[in-house]
Amino acid sequence: MPVELDPASLNIRSLGERAISSPLEKLMAECTPGHAFYSDDHRVLVKHELPDVSRMIADGEEFPCFEVAGPRKKIYFDPSQTTCAIVTCGGLCPGFNDVIRAIVMQAYYRYGVRRIYGIPYGFEGLIPEYGHAIVNLTPEAVANIHEFGGTWLGTSRGPQDVLRMVDRLQELGVNVLFVIGGDGSQRGALAIEQEARKRGAKLAVVGVPKTIDNDMIYMDKSFGYETAAAAAVNAVHAAHTEARSARGGIGLVKLMGRHSGFIACAAAIASGEVNAVLIPEVPFALDGEHGFLEVIRQRVVSRGHAVVIVAEGAGQELLGQTGETDASGNLRLGDIGHFLKDRLADHFSKCKTALTLKYIDPSYMIRSVPASPQDRIYCMRLGQAAVHAGMAGKTGLIVARWHSVYVHVPIAVATSARRTVDPGKDIWLSVLESTGQPARYY
Amino acid sequence: MPVELDPASLNIRSLGERAISSPLEKLMAECTPGHAFYSDDHRVLVKHELPDVSRMIADGEEFPCFEVAGPRKKIYFDPSQTTCAIVTCGGLCPGFNDVIRAIVMQAYYRYGVRRIYGIPYGFEGLIPEYGHAIVNLTPEAVANIHEFGGTWLGTSRGPQDVLRMVDRLQELGVNVLFVIGGDGSQRGALAIEQEARKRGAKLAVVGVPKTIDNDMIYMDKSFGYETAAAAAVNAVHAAHTEARSARGGIGLVKLMGRHSGFIACAAAIASGEVNAVLIPEVPFALDGEHGFLEVIRQRVVSRGHAVVIVAEGAGQELLGQTGETDASGNLRLGDIGHFLKDRLADHFSKCKTALTLKYIDPSYMIRSVPASPQDRIYCMRLGQAAVHAGMAGKTGLIVARWHSVYVHVPIAVATSARRTVDPGKDIWLSVLESTGQPARYY
Amino acid sequence: MPVELDPASLNIRSLGERAISSPLEKLMAECTPGHAFYSDDHRVLVKHELPDVSRMIADGEEFPCFEVAGPRKKIYFDPSQTTCAIVTCGGLCPGFNDVIRAIVMQAYYRYGVRRIYGIPYGFEGLIPEYGHAIVNLTPEAVANIHEFGGTWLGTSRGPQDVLRMVDRLQELGVNVLFVIGGDGSQRGALAIEQEARKRGAKLAVVGVPKTIDNDMIYMDKSFGYETAAAAAVNAVHAAHTEARSARGGIGLVKLMGRHSGFIACAAAIASGEVNAVLIPEVPFALDGEHGFLEVIRQRVVSRGHAVVIVAEGAGQELLGQTGETDASGNLRLGDIGHFLKDRLADHFSKCKTALTLKYIDPSYMIRSVPASPQDRIYCMRLGQAAVHAGMAGKTGLIVARWHSVYVHVPIAVATSARRTVDPGKDIWLSVLESTGQPARYY
Amino acid sequence: MPVELDPASLNIRSLGERAISSPLEKLMAECTPGHAFYSDDHRVLVKHELPDVSRMIADGEEFPCFEVAGPRKKIYFDPSQTTCAIVTCGGLCPGFNDVIRAIVMQAYYRYGVRRIYGIPYGFEGLIPEYGHAIVNLTPEAVANIHEFGGTWLGTSRGPQDVLRMVDRLQELGVNVLFVIGGDGSQRGALAIEQEARKRGAKLAVVGVPKTIDNDMIYMDKSFGYETAAAAAVNAVHAAHTEARSARGGIGLVKLMGRHSGFIACAAAIASGEVNAVLIPEVPFALDGEHGFLEVIRQRVVSRGHAVVIVAEGAGQELLGQTGETDASGNLRLGDIGHFLKDRLADHFSKCKTALTLKYIDPSYMIRSVPASPQDRIYCMRLGQAAVHAGMAGKTGLIVARWHSVYVHVPIAVATSARRTVDPGKDIWLSVLESTGQPARYY
Repeated sequence: MPVELDPASLNIRSLGERAISSPLEKLMAECTPGHAFYSDDHRVLVKHELPDVSRMIADGEEFPCFEVAGPRKKIYFDPSQTTCAIVTCGGLCPGFNDVIRAIVMQAYYRYGVRRIYGIPYGFEGLIPEYGHAIVNLTPEAVANIHEFGGTWLGTSRGPQDVLRMVDRLQELGVNVLFVIGGDGSQRGALAIEQEARKRGAKLAVVGVPKTIDNDMIYMDKSFGYETAAAAAVNAVHAAHTEARSARGGIGLVKLMGRHSGFIACAAAIASGEVNAVLIPEVPFALDGEHGFLEVIRQRVVSRGHAVVIVAEGAGQELLGQTGETDASGNLRLGDIGHFLKDRLADHFSKCKTALTLKYIDPSYMIRSVPASPQDRIYCMRLGQAAVHAGMAGKTGLIVARWHSVYVHVPIAVATSARRTVDPGKDIWLSVLESTGQPARYY
Repeated sequence: MPVELDPASLNIRSLGERAISSPLEKLMAECTPGHAFYSDDHRVLVKHELPDVSRMIADGEEFPCFEVAGPRKKIYFDPSQTTCAIVTCGGLCPGFNDVIRAIVMQAYYRYGVRRIYGIPYGFEGLIPEYGHAIVNLTPEAVANIHEFGGTWLGTSRGPQDVLRMVDRLQELGVNVLFVIGGDGSQRGALAIEQEARKRGAKLAVVGVPKTIDNDMIYMDKSFGYETAAAAAVNAVHAAHTEARSARGGIGLVKLMGRHSGFIACAAAIASGEVNAVLIPEVPFALDGEHGFLEVIRQRVVSRGHAVVIVAEGAGQELLGQTGETDASGNLRLGDIGHFLKDRLADHFSKCKTALTLKYIDPSYMIRSVPASPQDRIYCMRLGQAAVHAGMAGKTGLIVARWHSVYVHVPIAVATSARRTVDPGKDIWLSVLESTGQPARYY
Repeated sequence: MPVELDPASLNIRSLGERAISSPLEKLMAECTPGHAFYSDDHRVLVKHELPDVSRMIADGEEFPCFEVAGPRKKIYFDPSQTTCAIVTCGGLCPGFNDVIRAIVMQAYYRYGVRRIYGIPYGFEGLIPEYGHAIVNLTPEAVANIHEFGGTWLGTSRGPQDVLRMVDRLQELGVNVLFVIGGDGSQRGALAIEQEARKRGAKLAVVGVPKTIDNDMIYMDKSFGYETAAAAAVNAVHAAHTEARSARGGIGLVKLMGRHSGFIACAAAIASGEVNAVLIPEVPFALDGEHGFLEVIRQRVVSRGHAVVIVAEGAGQELLGQTGETDASGNLRLGDIGHFLKDRLADHFSKCKTALTLKYIDPSYMIRSVPASPQDRIYCMRLGQAAVHAGMAGKTGLIVARWHSVYVHVPIAVATSARRTVDPGKDIWLSVLESTGQPARYY
Repeated sequence: MPVELDPASLNIRSLGERAISSPLEKLMAECTPGHAFYSDDHRVLVKHELPDVSRMIADGEEFPCFEVAGPRKKIYFDPSQTTCAIVTCGGLCPGFNDVIRAIVMQAYYRYGVRRIYGIPYGFEGLIPEYGHAIVNLTPEAVANIHEFGGTWLGTSRGPQDVLRMVDRLQELGVNVLFVIGGDGSQRGALAIEQEARKRGAKLAVVGVPKTIDNDMIYMDKSFGYETAAAAAVNAVHAAHTEARSARGGIGLVKLMGRHSGFIACAAAIASGEVNAVLIPEVPFALDGEHGFLEVIRQRVVSRGHAVVIVAEGAGQELLGQTGETDASGNLRLGDIGHFLKDRLADHFSKCKTALTLKYIDPSYMIRSVPASPQDRIYCMRLGQAAVHAGMAGKTGLIVARWHSVYVHVPIAVATSARRTVDPGKDIWLSVLESTGQPARYY
């Protein structure tokens, strides 16, 4: 997280004067005497902990703040003339369909927008050569999609040509583009926004950040992450059951987490059955008396079995890196799961300790499930906030919840760094307390 | 929520100088170079939104802050000489067993406490006449209890004689008492703390707040609430299925929520299938053109069916109040569910509109389920925080998460008011947006 | 079950000579060298247990047999000219949508039928005055309906005028009518078949028997019953959790079962948590030393809690009967659940035994769930068998599985008696063994 | 299935005269006037279908019959003097713990047996060198184990020395040994029975057959199979979701089924989402116009995606066989899953068809789940039947359900052949009808 955050960098760009009365005016008046619409002065501190805050006050510093999300009294787009579009990008994540549904329902029923396009298969859907047909999204079409995992619109990885995507959006007459995707896709969204601005096109680009790894900054959590962590617990239960049923049983589970071990940590704490968690943020030694292999062997000898979670991005320094990247430009990770499996087998064999190791890689079974009820609520509210922002002519932002408040974060800020598990803070401490593993394998 | 909160009122009481080195010192040193234990100066603002905060700075006001929870470098109790006790009070709530388990595991494995008593059947368990036998809680005994709903210790409602409870705690030699219960039970805990203090007994009383209704203030959420809301969604699905399968179908679901409609709101947003939500915070009219009965009838006529959620405490002003109270001193509520069922039947009959109404009251099937993975994590972390607080000699507090940070809140503050759904704020707006219901039935 | 079953009564009526080659011919040839289509001589014994069978052989009796279901080499209807219709009747049951989907998929893809009507809201949908619009069922329309509970077509209770229903079916040009419903509805189906025959209409009527109570004879099980029993286990878990968490805790669960206690028995055995099961087939005394009330009180005194299941039709002789009937002509049952609740309260109070009774009536939450995977398979196969039968011109029958083989049973035979739990046979013995309850409360 | 089954081969061996009155006598008398205990003359036909049965009658053949299971009036062992032992062998399967629990509960509560040993880690537990401690099984110890997957006793693969196992059983004074395991383990059980008989030891050996693949003959189903098939459906859903969300999406799921494709077939029918099922019983060609690769590619081109299930034992003829065997003596199978994955990638690449293939191997997550409610009932009843048989002095048998009746099958008969999916019978036809795949890829 950047140490110094310039308060001015948190201002949200707008397409211009907002002069149209919100169709929500009557509803707001009835539920809140005095029309308590959300104004742009309603903000929330980025940092809320002492002694930091005290020091800033003492120094007379201006506080970095996020604009609070919600309906605005005056909006920029006339709903009856507005065309919205939704695109879903990157790997599957629980909740995609909930966000699509929430945006459609909100734009249609609350604002009265009648043209909402679904862009198929991610940014590919904006490049005519792929031949994907644009979809019309209506409340009927999306009514039940949240009962299913995946994304109704399809998805793809990687960037596409920005100029051609903006050409296509202009051709379609899109006024508000909703981009549901990860940091790479949000950078793509920002590039679209910038190109549209250069052309003078009145296009609002609003992002809904998606990362199953929960590794984007300035948000309490990403949608789908809690569902994924809950699904991961099933894999841990399976590993625990296998480990306990065999002599010298080890259950080894590889979970998502390229750069951040949140799912691994959550699955460990939630299951209460894990003896070691390996995450990208905490390097570990394999060999030697205090190394991972021997510590686990001791555990198996003394307690009969062990359960280990390894995040896919952990221990990369132990593997020969290929330097290859995938379509999204992400570095191809070495396969830490099979590597550990083999090294454990070698070590136990060398020590003549019985071993029955079961290796579980549940990732597709995790990321494809429908969202849990809590994630549904989160998706619904993110979708509602995204529509409020877009209709108000705000652009180049993502919507998120920060310290319990829904806010607007500039895309540039949200993608400026990655959120990781801090090995000196309470989540990791809670993992250590839950698993009983040493602070470090050395 | 009290408008003015005195910063001094948020200080946490302590049993005295803390001079014993924490057994966590080595672990902390290894995971954080420089021993980053939590100090009592580490705090979090109670309010973090502008313009409130700006005004306070301009006025030079001192900020109300909560002490941050977590392990302290010096602790008050020598673990090898310490006796802990756990009591669970009030109605069932998912997560009771997770909190019990977390406290036992943390006290036993991380601090080395060897005597942990389970007090059976709530405060009754401290009154010898009831004849309940105190239970020894060990890691083995609690290893799997989180797989089950309810409370392993049993529970009861209502207060008991404070003097006799303190007698019994002294007799048992209890040093740290963990009270898992609602606002009434936490007031009981505070009374025990005050009596013990009067007697000069070195007893730390630490509360873990339990309210399935999510209606206690100064916490992001209460444990079990999200699990309950998720279980409530099943009842809503049933109501929706019944309503859609019959001519003139209405599914009417009564959910928890004596004073606060959080579960009703969450179930409505999460299911995406609800057409009307009635909560205690928003009065409603039954009769007339814009009244609930006719609006629902219009919905059934035009769309074939309707789904309605009513919180148990809603519309009490429409019922003749008995003024009776239960064992916990709570006012007995009138039965709004059956009342609405009858009134809908009358109204539809009068209007000669076909009606097939199915009434579902799922409360026991909701409150008795095991905690969801996310609630397990929350319970685990509350339990860990509670043990840190108790071993440090802090007393008269509850542990909670506030704006994403685990904190200590004085019991007196936590029980000074009730948290409710604000009809002018975003949760209720989100309900209105999701259901399409009018802001008010009038 | 009728003691003497005339073998001739098991013959299945046919619309006439079957001369059209089945479109399945190529598929069958490829999977089975030699075209092993099912012939009408392929039959299965109604009774397969000795000494009964030996006696029949000794006496030279002809064996009652059911015709085996499956594809026929020659069919009666030309698929391209055939119109099918599906109607769903009676109370909700898991699997309705699976059967609808199976019939549509099978008729459309395997036989090439292109007109499949959905009759809305049960037999009402055949009476124009109700104003229900007939639905066109296509594979696209039904592709995902099995993910949802209830019936996509809607349902209603009770009979309608047979002449007018046949008028409407003729008007619509229906050749094969699939009736998914209980014994009353199957009698209605038979009346339709008889009236059509009288008119010389070439209408095949094929029933898929639906009874959540599992109380129809000559079938291994009814679809949805196992799903319902599994859902009932959740209610039993809730009751058990409540009972164990309170002093003097009793969890009392009322389950389906008007005349037959199968769901009650299954939920008891599956949960392993039940101490008493009361079913319609086994009368019980309430009072006295060996009566239900005192035996349960003894259990609560000695073990702290108890879980009781009562089937809705149990103990009717203890209640004052009203003699009223519902729209389907079923006798309105007295409310045994609340009756027992009150009587237990009285008895415990009289004996000054603490009691915390929680009463759970989960029926809507049970009957509205989607079918379990096993029930999906069963529904799929019943639907496939029904289409095979209908296309072959067979009529006046239901499809069912009998002793592991899918068969055709004449509607008149299938509705001639009711299946009940035999108090002298192994299911009830298994309940007694599982619960430890006495064979009779007397 | 052997074409000719000698009726005499189905007789069940007994330890001798049964002279002790069953403790169930009173219970039986109360539930069935006239003491309707099960006698050994109560039998069920092995075959119940015509024309087979007719032909046998015509020829005057004796019918092969299974003895019906259940309580006997006179038993062989005096419960107060009886020692039982339970051992669980082979790979994990849902329901192990349910069977253990059922046997303990039944032997303890219904017969009054007080010494029940748990043999740890399969047959290894009878060989002292492994150092496994024998466990005492009491109702308290097993009360909740059915909530967990795996086997509480642990398991291992492969045979052990029969002489030493019988030595150990005699040392322990075991009278009734319950062996829960697959065909290999049941052969081991039979060897133990034969050796004990040779020694004149009064040891009853009763098997409860366990095969997750459902591939043992003479049983309606094996316990755990339905649970496993239901869990497999989750993997299919994941594959379907992945396939639909990507351009050129294929979801490929490898499921259990070394020799028999029952789980693959069940998962395909239950999910309704599968386009091709490959099982060991039906060979298939990969290449050519009608080969698997091209047919699937055509499906992807025309419909956008495809879902494929392959049983682990399918297509072994396409792989180079190693001839290796595992500890249980089973042939090590070639990895058909990865083979197909690679061949599909090659073929699509050669044809320049876009492909996004997701490969899922969920086996540990399937076999480790707790039993479903229906399997719980089945396990409970198998366990009850096993205890009845053992206490009656019956030996060398397994208990099973055959055509809806619980029966005794001699181990030698039950292990004489393997049950497979018959490509000419209704299950496979139902798969073809559900998936729309061709009868053969050629």
